[in-house]
Amino acid sequence: MAHITLPNPNLPGISGLLDYNKTTAQPLLHLAETLLRSDSTLTSGERELIAAHVSYLNNCHFCHSSHAAAAVAHLGCDISLMDDIKRNFAETTISPKLRALLDIAAKVQRGGKHVLPEDIEKARQHDATDREIHDTVLIAAAFCMFNRYVDGLGTWAPQDNEAYLEMGQKMAFLGYNRPR
Amino acid sequence: MAHITLPNPNLPGISGLLDYNKTTAQPLLHLAETLLRSDSTLTSGERELIAAHVSYLNNCHFCHSSHAAAAVAHLGCDISLMDDIKRNFAETTISPKLRALLDIAAKVQRGGKHVLPEDIEKARQHDATDREIHDTVLIAAAFCMFNRYVDGLGTWAPQDNEAYLEMGQKMAFLGYNRPR
Repeated sequence: MAHITLPNPNLPGISGLLDYNKTTAQPLLHLAETLLRSDSTLTSGERELIAAHVSYLNNCHFCHSSHAAAAVAHLGCDISLMDDIKRNFAETTISPKLRALLDIAAKVQRGGKHVLPEDIEKARQHDATDREIHDTVLIAAAFCMFNRYVDGLGTWAPQDNEAYLEMGQKMAFLGYNRPR
Repeated sequence: MAHITLPNPNLPGISGLLDYNKTTAQPLLHLAETLLRSDSTLTSGERELIAAHVSYLNNCHFCHSSHAAAAVAHLGCDISLMDDIKRNFAETTISPKLRALLDIAAKVQRGGKHVLPEDIEKARQHDATDREIHDTVLIAAAFCMFNRYVDGLGTWAPQDNEAYLEMGQKMAFLGYNRPR
């Protein structure tokens, strides 16, 4: 049960909180839409993988699962990807550039000062642009917020991967700014 | 020097990043304005103290100093408050409610799951409302994002407290949504 009384306690994770306060929901959803679905040389699938990776490192089951499901929807791949994110992509083929960006995201999760010039240099060696590095850092930072919002208020989350597939489809193809 | 090339490298902290990417700047500034300056039963001074406290715990000198300076501006108090935030308010009189909310914010800084029902209960005993608890968790979470954005991209920050006073006045009285 959440730490505060929500008007619709059946809504899981961040959904119940966005419904609780529409004033704060607006910039939060605008930010998610901008970071994950606006024009970028990183695909939305890649950006959702960064979001899911950071959420797993923050031990946020709802955000990990929902953004992993959105990545599955974007990439059209098997649901097993959701668990493979937890294994740091042991079985998934990812580009060297995305690998370097995921490593930067993991440093950001620990704290901004953990990102070192050599981490940036490695991403550049794999052709990451300034904009891609900027977006990776900001996506990772933003999920350090979303994860803490969701868990800091004690929201509930469905357990099984399958429960997130429809949500992932909506996040991927309808986006974050849709009416609730 | 920042990890990426900024059009105006003289702008410190988040200012250079907001100038670099106006598309992501928009929801970020809207979020700061909503969290710190919109109608609330917590004063803007109290909310800036929560922001500065979390930023100090995240070791983000720019965000700590600028939001501490905004708190000084709102509260009309001495600049020594900026350093006293680093000492967890050893010399500053704060209400038991704000103390309990600052303690929740510090838990959020460590991770959402660190917030326990007894932390919430303690805040309630000092008359904190659901909305105040919600806003405290979200402000603390948001500064875990802003701090990582600022430090994860290696921005520079002025050292001395005095360098932040004018910035704090602008943040407090002109707000975050002003043209840049």
